[in-house]
Amino acid sequence: MAKIVCVLYDDPVTGDPKTYARDSLPRLERYPDGQTLPTPRAIDFQPGTLLGSVSGELGLRKYLESNGHKLVVTSSKDGADSVLDRELHDAEIVISQPFWPAYMTAERIARAPRLKMIVTAGIGSDHTDLQAAMERGVTVAEVTYCNSNSVAEHVVMMTLSLVRNYIPSYNRVVKGGWNIADCVQRSYDLEGMQVGSVAAGRIGLRVLRLLKPFDVKLHYLDRHRLPEAIEKELHLTHHSSLESLTKVCDVVSLNCPLHPETEHMINAQSLKNFKRGAYLINTARGKLCDRDAVAAALESGQLAGYAGDVWFPQPAPKDHPWRSMPHHGMTPHISGTSLSAQARYAAGTREILECYFENRPIRDEYLIVQGGKLAGVGAHSYSAGNATKGSEEAARFRK
Amino acid sequence: MAKIVCVLYDDPVTGDPKTYARDSLPRLERYPDGQTLPTPRAIDFQPGTLLGSVSGELGLRKYLESNGHKLVVTSSKDGADSVLDRELHDAEIVISQPFWPAYMTAERIARAPRLKMIVTAGIGSDHTDLQAAMERGVTVAEVTYCNSNSVAEHVVMMTLSLVRNYIPSYNRVVKGGWNIADCVQRSYDLEGMQVGSVAAGRIGLRVLRLLKPFDVKLHYLDRHRLPEAIEKELHLTHHSSLESLTKVCDVVSLNCPLHPETEHMINAQSLKNFKRGAYLINTARGKLCDRDAVAAALESGQLAGYAGDVWFPQPAPKDHPWRSMPHHGMTPHISGTSLSAQARYAAGTREILECYFENRPIRDEYLIVQGGKLAGVGAHSYSAGNATKGSEEAARFRK
Repeated sequence: MAKIVCVLYDDPVTGDPKTYARDSLPRLERYPDGQTLPTPRAIDFQPGTLLGSVSGELGLRKYLESNGHKLVVTSSKDGADSVLDRELHDAEIVISQPFWPAYMTAERIARAPRLKMIVTAGIGSDHTDLQAAMERGVTVAEVTYCNSNSVAEHVVMMTLSLVRNYIPSYNRVVKGGWNIADCVQRSYDLEGMQVGSVAAGRIGLRVLRLLKPFDVKLHYLDRHRLPEAIEKELHLTHHSSLESLTKVCDVVSLNCPLHPETEHMINAQSLKNFKRGAYLINTARGKLCDRDAVAAALESGQLAGYAGDVWFPQPAPKDHPWRSMPHHGMTPHISGTSLSAQARYAAGTREILECYFENRPIRDEYLIVQGGKLAGVGAHSYSAGNATKGSEEAARFRK
Repeated sequence: MAKIVCVLYDDPVTGDPKTYARDSLPRLERYPDGQTLPTPRAIDFQPGTLLGSVSGELGLRKYLESNGHKLVVTSSKDGADSVLDRELHDAEIVISQPFWPAYMTAERIARAPRLKMIVTAGIGSDHTDLQAAMERGVTVAEVTYCNSNSVAEHVVMMTLSLVRNYIPSYNRVVKGGWNIADCVQRSYDLEGMQVGSVAAGRIGLRVLRLLKPFDVKLHYLDRHRLPEAIEKELHLTHHSSLESLTKVCDVVSLNCPLHPETEHMINAQSLKNFKRGAYLINTARGKLCDRDAVAAALESGQLAGYAGDVWFPQPAPKDHPWRSMPHHGMTPHISGTSLSAQARYAAGTREILECYFENRPIRDEYLIVQGGKLAGVGAHSYSAGNATKGSEEAARFRK
């Protein structure tokens, strides 16, 4: 009998959680690269319902309890009085999500002698001290690809909304106004603009693909060149430096991981190399950007708009300047936890647990750490040297 | 010496009209079907500035006055005391836009004995009584294609924003909140959904093309089948009835003209044939939808969201239910008058005027009525029998 501690975000405080806007989710066959969707033996939840919040329990209770295990679900994750801390002493598996991460620091891992596995119900294991997990032989797994397309849709939505001045125009309607010129004096077409992605991994490449038919000119910055066939298909221009990319782009979308080299890559100095009136979209990591430099660039007009759904810290304090700076289109950290994404990461978590309890191998693409070393996708995306840094902040993406 | 009366929307009441968010517009080469952009001999305006409002004057004053003509610019267009009515008696050309249309009724045409041409600085000449224009030998022209792509971008933006629950999530940020579950309990991915366009003309086909890489299943309703090559390229499913389309679609986008057969095509009865929780986007004409039936469908949950930028009447009264109904994403009538579109329709208007004054032919694709009959695109898109109906309302699109 194992004890599983599952850290999830709080339930809704508005609306009727029993009534959903829609009755079902579309059925997807495969991810764009051919990877199959999660394939648990069964699921005990209704796809399209809230699974990532406390009452949803990732749909795991029946499965776990019927197999004799104990499931503890909580949103209480920070501080010595947290439920997470109280339950650690005999926990075998800890599950959490990047949106509401259980920070599995070396100190916490040390206080969990029976811990065998840490699962991210989503993508991004930066909230776990991978070095400590390796040293203790703890497996770290996540549900690769489960919400990459979700985030890419968020990027396109925010790009169009900033460029076309959507939300201010909507607000005029709601407030009873009509003046067209007020709305359109900041409204442009995306067509013909230069659009650049910082990094072209699963999310960045998807963003580029989604934007192609808008007849924009596409650019990307990445240490690794994409295959020539993809560059040709999308008419991509490759850049080797941020300055080279930002000097020509009207829209810049950040889709890279956070590590010491990318932290605050967008700052007062690098913003000077943007075209005046550029739009910046950041759904990757809040700390990629210097908070006050972004706000100042919007105030001065150097940036025409900023949108995204990642902050530092999270939840953002009520007085975080990104809540009130001009021309922003921010959401809370939600792009990867649509109801559609929840169904995939709940199924993927179930698949990982089934493999674990049935002593079947967890699929390679879900593994970050196993057997004391980086494994699976972890071997490509993390390095033993620096993967444990910055674990005080939630992280969703890696390249 | 000719007198030109130009009816434009009012100037902004907010912001600094001298400071624009961006310094330039992208240069476009051609429209998707190969048609060239407007090619006047010269322009006297800065692309990217407000041209559609009164102070912008469509950039025409210098050109017209230097050629000895008189230009009257006004936003006063309705009622007997309007500047338009006062100036009609010796006007040779009347110019207006669908966003702020000068309703050129038979009665007004009768009171303008010197009238030779009516120009739409945009697309859609429904605000002109075409029958009366034909009988009087007045030329009617518009700037075909100038903002078709602009509107299609608006459709994609609104689709993603409704499906992903963007604006309510943004509002939580602005109001200092964070609860993720509140935001995502109505947030879905577009991926995999069934998306249908009612009509597949310039705008509808563009919408379908823009949505293709989102891995949605595409449908369209049109009396005319698209070429087989296009159906295959986009994996399109053709429907012959609205009911057939709406029964399978999660998102329905209206891109058809308003005429007696399409007026109120979306009503209490036809809404029953939608899937529960469908999203409806209408950037075509407000009167395609029964106002109260749409609001009721949102209240009941039959529709999960409604967005668009066309209303009836326009400007919408402060108490119009579409301003306050749940789950809407409306804007004022702006999708076709981005600063990008303004530069194209101002240049196109200039091209039309140059042709007129220099006795050169106006290009066929801009002509609706000439020499007492439907001409150019007008011969394909309008019929003499019903083109004059409904001229009390602004119209932007035809198929």
